[in-house]
Amino acid sequence: MVGGGQHAFIGAIHRIAANIDGLIELHCGAFSSNPETSKESGKELFLPESKCYGSYAEMFATESGLPKEQRMDFVTIVTPNFAHFAPAMMALEYGFHVVIDKPMTLSLGEAKQLQQKVKETGLILCLTHTYSGYPMVKQARKMVADNQFGKIRKVMVEYPQGWLSTLSESEGNKQALWRTDPSKSGISGCMGDIGTHAAQLAEYISGLKISKLCADINIVVEGRNLDDDGNVLLKFDNGANGILVASQIASGEENSLKIKIYGEKGGLEWHQMEPNTLLVKWSDAPAQIYRAGNGYLSNIATFNSRTPSGHPEGYLEAFANLYKNFALTLLSKSEGKEPTEEMLDFPNADDGVRGMAFIENVIASGKSDQKWFDFNI
Amino acid sequence: MVGGGQHAFIGAIHRIAANIDGLIELHCGAFSSNPETSKESGKELFLPESKCYGSYAEMFATESGLPKEQRMDFVTIVTPNFAHFAPAMMALEYGFHVVIDKPMTLSLGEAKQLQQKVKETGLILCLTHTYSGYPMVKQARKMVADNQFGKIRKVMVEYPQGWLSTLSESEGNKQALWRTDPSKSGISGCMGDIGTHAAQLAEYISGLKISKLCADINIVVEGRNLDDDGNVLLKFDNGANGILVASQIASGEENSLKIKIYGEKGGLEWHQMEPNTLLVKWSDAPAQIYRAGNGYLSNIATFNSRTPSGHPEGYLEAFANLYKNFALTLLSKSEGKEPTEEMLDFPNADDGVRGMAFIENVIASGKSDQKWFDFNI
Amino acid sequence: MVGGGQHAFIGAIHRIAANIDGLIELHCGAFSSNPETSKESGKELFLPESKCYGSYAEMFATESGLPKEQRMDFVTIVTPNFAHFAPAMMALEYGFHVVIDKPMTLSLGEAKQLQQKVKETGLILCLTHTYSGYPMVKQARKMVADNQFGKIRKVMVEYPQGWLSTLSESEGNKQALWRTDPSKSGISGCMGDIGTHAAQLAEYISGLKISKLCADINIVVEGRNLDDDGNVLLKFDNGANGILVASQIASGEENSLKIKIYGEKGGLEWHQMEPNTLLVKWSDAPAQIYRAGNGYLSNIATFNSRTPSGHPEGYLEAFANLYKNFALTLLSKSEGKEPTEEMLDFPNADDGVRGMAFIENVIASGKSDQKWFDFNI
Amino acid sequence: MVGGGQHAFIGAIHRIAANIDGLIELHCGAFSSNPETSKESGKELFLPESKCYGSYAEMFATESGLPKEQRMDFVTIVTPNFAHFAPAMMALEYGFHVVIDKPMTLSLGEAKQLQQKVKETGLILCLTHTYSGYPMVKQARKMVADNQFGKIRKVMVEYPQGWLSTLSESEGNKQALWRTDPSKSGISGCMGDIGTHAAQLAEYISGLKISKLCADINIVVEGRNLDDDGNVLLKFDNGANGILVASQIASGEENSLKIKIYGEKGGLEWHQMEPNTLLVKWSDAPAQIYRAGNGYLSNIATFNSRTPSGHPEGYLEAFANLYKNFALTLLSKSEGKEPTEEMLDFPNADDGVRGMAFIENVIASGKSDQKWFDFNI
Repeated sequence: MVGGGQHAFIGAIHRIAANIDGLIELHCGAFSSNPETSKESGKELFLPESKCYGSYAEMFATESGLPKEQRMDFVTIVTPNFAHFAPAMMALEYGFHVVIDKPMTLSLGEAKQLQQKVKETGLILCLTHTYSGYPMVKQARKMVADNQFGKIRKVMVEYPQGWLSTLSESEGNKQALWRTDPSKSGISGCMGDIGTHAAQLAEYISGLKISKLCADINIVVEGRNLDDDGNVLLKFDNGANGILVASQIASGEENSLKIKIYGEKGGLEWHQMEPNTLLVKWSDAPAQIYRAGNGYLSNIATFNSRTPSGHPEGYLEAFANLYKNFALTLLSKSEGKEPTEEMLDFPNADDGVRGMAFIENVIASGKSDQKWFDFNI
Repeated sequence: MVGGGQHAFIGAIHRIAANIDGLIELHCGAFSSNPETSKESGKELFLPESKCYGSYAEMFATESGLPKEQRMDFVTIVTPNFAHFAPAMMALEYGFHVVIDKPMTLSLGEAKQLQQKVKETGLILCLTHTYSGYPMVKQARKMVADNQFGKIRKVMVEYPQGWLSTLSESEGNKQALWRTDPSKSGISGCMGDIGTHAAQLAEYISGLKISKLCADINIVVEGRNLDDDGNVLLKFDNGANGILVASQIASGEENSLKIKIYGEKGGLEWHQMEPNTLLVKWSDAPAQIYRAGNGYLSNIATFNSRTPSGHPEGYLEAFANLYKNFALTLLSKSEGKEPTEEMLDFPNADDGVRGMAFIENVIASGKSDQKWFDFNI
Repeated sequence: MVGGGQHAFIGAIHRIAANIDGLIELHCGAFSSNPETSKESGKELFLPESKCYGSYAEMFATESGLPKEQRMDFVTIVTPNFAHFAPAMMALEYGFHVVIDKPMTLSLGEAKQLQQKVKETGLILCLTHTYSGYPMVKQARKMVADNQFGKIRKVMVEYPQGWLSTLSESEGNKQALWRTDPSKSGISGCMGDIGTHAAQLAEYISGLKISKLCADINIVVEGRNLDDDGNVLLKFDNGANGILVASQIASGEENSLKIKIYGEKGGLEWHQMEPNTLLVKWSDAPAQIYRAGNGYLSNIATFNSRTPSGHPEGYLEAFANLYKNFALTLLSKSEGKEPTEEMLDFPNADDGVRGMAFIENVIASGKSDQKWFDFNI
Repeated sequence: MVGGGQHAFIGAIHRIAANIDGLIELHCGAFSSNPETSKESGKELFLPESKCYGSYAEMFATESGLPKEQRMDFVTIVTPNFAHFAPAMMALEYGFHVVIDKPMTLSLGEAKQLQQKVKETGLILCLTHTYSGYPMVKQARKMVADNQFGKIRKVMVEYPQGWLSTLSESEGNKQALWRTDPSKSGISGCMGDIGTHAAQLAEYISGLKISKLCADINIVVEGRNLDDDGNVLLKFDNGANGILVASQIASGEENSLKIKIYGEKGGLEWHQMEPNTLLVKWSDAPAQIYRAGNGYLSNIATFNSRTPSGHPEGYLEAFANLYKNFALTLLSKSEGKEPTEEMLDFPNADDGVRGMAFIENVIASGKSDQKWFDFNI
């Protein structure tokens, strides 16, 4: 693990997600750019001191020199955005597979280089767009792919949070501090942090690609350095239209990612905060409540569940599904087998490039007087 | 009543709404442009034949000649949009107050003339934007006006319906037929029919005015003559941003008008289909469920309720609130008293003009390559 | 109308319910046992003074002497329980049909006499168990009757309210005063007031009859004279079991009547406070959300709706359905036609007898050490 | 681990729950009474063959002989009910702490012996009543304990499942097979399996003890050998009344445990299937939605959460909280420190005895003609 030392948020989440299924064990870490903090953090995680490295460069060099049985199998990178690219490139060069938090890099250019390196090395990169790990999201994607709703016509995705309603970066909130700092986060705050999740979810479920957008990007809280809010009109490659809202100043909201998709014959609706329910609507019949863990679900949904119906799984299990599928893919490959389609169902470097392209396009559109922007990669 | 003959939808709704509180009685009608249909319709409504007129012109002329005790007190116009202006103008000229369905006229020009006539005559015009008649909408407006949420920053309003998901105007659906016919409906279908409701609700609750917009207006179902879908970016006069979605091709949706408004300190959420609940969110405290009929509500909400808490009121009662307030206003004036603020709380000719301006601006923006359009009246 | 003068609750509800469909007009009233109050009340309702009687006896005598065209068609009795029997008997004796609030009488003995009188006279009595007037309740009943769920096995009905959480009868609450006074309400408070609604709803939807019960009846608030809370085990005539909870000390609850019924193949759930939704559950398929106003509903549900789907109807419309069906029945009979099954779908004197039997049995069981009590009539 | 071999349900759940927080590692197991199956199961769990024992007796003997660093720290028993007592007693005798699934034993007598053994040895026993591990359940308990609702007056708990709606034990369902077999499950099916959860939850949140009960216990599906359904009237030690429903023939229900508690000033409501929400109701103010992960929660709720608000945790995390608190207690003790109150917040042998007493009392009441049964231990 690179990053994720004491008091970090997402590092702890990654460790739980990796633990859940008993397939992955924390082996070593460069938890902080400060070697002392790294060692302290590792100790709290029951790691021997020898496995707490002072830098990721040292970790890669040392681990790659160990016999296969003793060295780490892959690297997880959970640093802020600006510190994704260098360790990821180096990990791939040393021959390690990579798990990396989204957005993949600081810029689209970096993302393309990383994508290229992945292709060259044939290694596996997993990008943790958590929300596509939920079983009912996979059920939704499958029902759309099976053409149950006819041609998709409209996609509405919204992702309101309220935690940046005040200038919390000036009030000692560490999460706020780096996420609103262009040197750490890149050219976008809100759109990079959560807008990318919304866009990825919309494309993942609908099977469509955003082809044009028209963005209203805002800094609502005075004194902030990056966008904290935005509304985006969308066009998709099949002609469908859509809307994407992401906001971190929606005061009183927690993490309220919701998506509605409409086709010719019906539609579906999913709320991340009640993730085990998928609402399926029909133009001429009662709506249906699809629920996780039931026998009537598709295989892909079942493959990504652990509990019987009515025993709710949540965010950590969705996250764990990314890790599980990634781990099963590695396991399969290590046994010389082709991973199944179900195992390969996790976001990868191509999704990372699309995510970075979304950020660059949406921010450019926000600054422009031109109405419709082509989604360029 | 002008219009609202046999098989008409909104005419029946108006009659129920007017009946509920026992303040208004159906006195006479020109229910159809066909005198026979008019008489038949009136008979079904227990009207004597003498009160079923063959035309509104005849009705106004005859009624205005009767002694005050025997003539109608006001006119309700429930015809399709194209047939609003002429009877409304004539009614005002004859000295009758007017209730009129939205959108107020076929064009902004007509709306301004009607507004002018209302001013000149001093008569009362009530425009039936039903959704602003709900008690919890009034509670929401009051809480915003009382500055409970601080400055309003964001408004999200959506109004998806699914009933035009197919080309039902070609399948004998009468409602679909006139609503998608430019000669009957005007320049807009969906935006005129339901987009105006959404815009009015957003302005009514927030107390803000739309100042700019950027619209994506679509005809999704092939062969249709007017828009059936649209997404609009909004700017309000206080700098807040917003989004408005209206669609009649959201397959599987009934009449799912929802609004979310966010201020500095919290926000609120209201769903028309569960109208007795107002969700109030706070940045630092548990969200609250305000419910109709409770003692903790503001006076204006209570004034517009009839039942104790937990005894749900609905669409017809919201509609009836417009009629009740209008009737109480007339009653007050007839007794030489000034109507109270609560009585005067119904949409009027000024709202009608804003509604028509919304339609003209949103359609013009939809056709334009310019990103932001000023909201011109 | 007998009762329902100024400041009365249920009288106003009855008038609105009767108004809604334009089939019924308030003709005259004995609104209070105080002639002055009766006149004042009538005046507020726009009745001429001659139609405001000083007593119901006077009203019946006078009205029955008028020509058919000028006299009232039926009597509505909205007085407290103790004052139901005498005016109802007298009305029937004078040849008037009767609408009467539940519970029908003060005792089972009275109820049986009234039932007998109804049979003898051939007149129509409508008992206003409002909740069976909701369209989705009728849909539920139809689906059970159509055997969609197989044999019914279990019924869970609960009716918590919180308005008697304190000793409000000693704090000037008029509703609380008579409802907790044995001389006005009879032998039961909570079970008579709302337990009867719950029992009627359970039997109405399930098509079953309660055959045994075991009751825990409580006076929770110290100083109260009648039960304000109770839990009851039930057995039904087909062997199904059930549970009925009614409470008026469920602090924080409004009027939260809910019912769940389970059969061999699935079940259903309905909440009075969101009455346009009926949840239908299946053992091997996704649950379905049946919604009022849709084309897929049964005729009986549609017959009891006024608005398109998504335009919520509520308590007053459910109440109005009782009046509408009653009025259509009278109209039919007055035209010499047999009323249809749909018209006759309102609670009648037989239901009133069952309701009074429920009260007597449940209170007797509550006082007894015997576990199971036969439901005796 | 004792039990939990291939295809077992609850064993896998225990392993995930133990994994989540990285505090516990699977060390060894006697996964099946069949040594081959035990080895196979262990292999799938990445255990070396030497750690897959053929019997729990062998495992205890061998492990207890190892140096402290190399031996297991505690035993988890996840066998069917009939096979809880013997391994638990033996484990304690060998000096191992114990985690055991509920109900604790096959009979109340066994439970008391186990409780006695725990006292004698001073070892720790954790009983996995999962539902008391949810953060919002702990929040609820704290609010009641803080007297926010005044004296508790009424408790309504229901636990409907539908998975035994047919005679699935005769259709090859292994879970159904042992759970409906008296020799494996004891004297009760439904009440032992889920009724105990409901009773424990009611007592845990309310802080009250059941003092009397009156039970209707049913075998609904013909041919079944143990109860699959029951309704129970309750009295609590402070005079409050209540109702407990548990059913496994509630066709179409998943795992729908719900609880409502009412005090003098308000009440609360929690649904296991949406566990991150706690509804708090007030007699004179809007209801509040308490949500997991927020700053306004009590310490005990926060201590049992892992994710920020809006990132849902579920059943596995609730289960993991029991393990985490148990592990922290062991850790504390191993470091010679007194565990904190928060660490000790998991069900123990005393709760196990109450659970077994509930089963014996409720079944005895079900068979009796006596109305009220004292809750005897």
